[in-house]
Amino acid sequence: MTLDVTRLRIILDWGTTSFRALLVTPDGTVRDRIETEEGIQSVREGDFLGVLQRAIAPWRAAYGFLPVYAAGMIGSRNGWIEMPYVPTPADSRDLAAQVKNLPLPDGGTITFLPGLTDRSAHPFPDVMRGEETQLVGFGLDKDITVVLPGTHAKWARIAGRRIAAFQTLVTGEIFSTLSRHSFLSKVARRPATSNWDAFLKGVALVRDDKRTAGLLTHLFAVRTGWLSGALVPEQMTDYLSGLVVASEFREAKALGWFTDGDRIAVVGDDDLVEVYERVAGAFGLSLEPAPEDAAVRGCLAVARIAEDIHPAA
Amino acid sequence: MTLDVTRLRIILDWGTTSFRALLVTPDGTVRDRIETEEGIQSVREGDFLGVLQRAIAPWRAAYGFLPVYAAGMIGSRNGWIEMPYVPTPADSRDLAAQVKNLPLPDGGTITFLPGLTDRSAHPFPDVMRGEETQLVGFGLDKDITVVLPGTHAKWARIAGRRIAAFQTLVTGEIFSTLSRHSFLSKVARRPATSNWDAFLKGVALVRDDKRTAGLLTHLFAVRTGWLSGALVPEQMTDYLSGLVVASEFREAKALGWFTDGDRIAVVGDDDLVEVYERVAGAFGLSLEPAPEDAAVRGCLAVARIAEDIHPAA
Repeated sequence: MTLDVTRLRIILDWGTTSFRALLVTPDGTVRDRIETEEGIQSVREGDFLGVLQRAIAPWRAAYGFLPVYAAGMIGSRNGWIEMPYVPTPADSRDLAAQVKNLPLPDGGTITFLPGLTDRSAHPFPDVMRGEETQLVGFGLDKDITVVLPGTHAKWARIAGRRIAAFQTLVTGEIFSTLSRHSFLSKVARRPATSNWDAFLKGVALVRDDKRTAGLLTHLFAVRTGWLSGALVPEQMTDYLSGLVVASEFREAKALGWFTDGDRIAVVGDDDLVEVYERVAGAFGLSLEPAPEDAAVRGCLAVARIAEDIHPAA
Repeated sequence: MTLDVTRLRIILDWGTTSFRALLVTPDGTVRDRIETEEGIQSVREGDFLGVLQRAIAPWRAAYGFLPVYAAGMIGSRNGWIEMPYVPTPADSRDLAAQVKNLPLPDGGTITFLPGLTDRSAHPFPDVMRGEETQLVGFGLDKDITVVLPGTHAKWARIAGRRIAAFQTLVTGEIFSTLSRHSFLSKVARRPATSNWDAFLKGVALVRDDKRTAGLLTHLFAVRTGWLSGALVPEQMTDYLSGLVVASEFREAKALGWFTDGDRIAVVGDDDLVEVYERVAGAFGLSLEPAPEDAAVRGCLAVARIAEDIHPAA
């Protein structure tokens, strides 16, 4: 099989709790998508192949064998195969050099992309799986800090046309576990629409705190705000959200990821982008535009190079 | 009924998830105890009276009516009656002046103790319910900072024979929700006995971090430590514990609750006291001895004054 740029490709976004397959044209246009709840943790007896084949059977029937590309947690220790981490600094060529092609028994090939590690991180090497394709899709041609919101948010530095360094902050995980399982969950009522006023009050509390208090201190304000009548239950989840994401920005600033007046980019494809952009604005940062389909663009960019390196795939 | 110092008293420790009643002599000796899982949140249709009467029926049969004292969350908005908060600075006399006696329909009386509020706290008044009796029981005669570990840990300053100020940090809540509901819970295996080595590694990470990173950054080290082979699953819960409690000490230091070389006290009656004392030691603090039964001592001290103020109870 030689490279045919006119061919369709399948890009997998197969995470811990969900399965998503995108049918894309070489220019990145998404022609079709299949989503199921068959996340990695629900796959029985390691039958990733079976789950994949059943999911994409309609495309197989319509188009024959299509090359499949998979980045992210499906290539982790708990996934299909454990892919290596490419060390920073790295660009799309470094990522493409480490892909692995797995022939599928009924024909066709799945290509796994590697993850990325920052060995300079303290105290242990930091890691990402999947976000590196978003960074490549965003573009590596300009020196800038990029934040990728998520369960484990990443702050990355693009410099010298490479991903130079990155750092994980567990903001989404903290917000999710606290809003579902803490003292908050008994009181807070999730609003129908985001309450940006309450959100920005939470942001301001953290941003303007001259005492360098931290998250353990600030979080109790969700409760004392309710007890004192300053917050009503409908506001508490948004207040918590503002407080937690602003804490991420405060930590990122302390760690040198940005300074006052910087221009940064927020890369992602869900509601969190707006949340992060509002916090960035509250911290006086300006925003570099970013495409919503950065993950697809990046995956295709790495795929194209990989197909040049391994044309027999 | 006049005050009879030889009489037994019942002290309730009735929290959100558990009910505990102590039968104590006037000198604070615990003669008997009854514990059930009938915490405030499990009481149906507000029948606190019924739960109490059924629980202490054996004592009622043996000793007749005994005065009952209740501090803590049973006197909160979600409890039996909502007690006021006495503002700091406050001593045992200020607390005793705000107790409320509720006659029980079949005879006897239950006396609720008020909570405590620090109106100088930022951004909303801080609150405690129950810990103020621990502080009184510890003693207010010496100027010192006292930390009370728990779901919502308190740092309090005793000065001028009063509780001068305090601050809540949600350390226990963060540890509990993360160890049960986060990425950790899928990997971490709780050790049979505490692994102090892993615990102190977590403490050191936070204490020695010159970059002023915060909790959102540090928490991911639990995962990267595992991925890099530096931590085995059995160590992860203790590493997390050290990391979170050390974060509390770091925030408390930033907020001025202690400075290098200070002497502080850790007041509580469970395993957390040892955990906190080890972190205090790691931060170079010396420890003032504290009694394990501070809550009982404090409740009785307030009760005695209240009985003088309201002898008809």
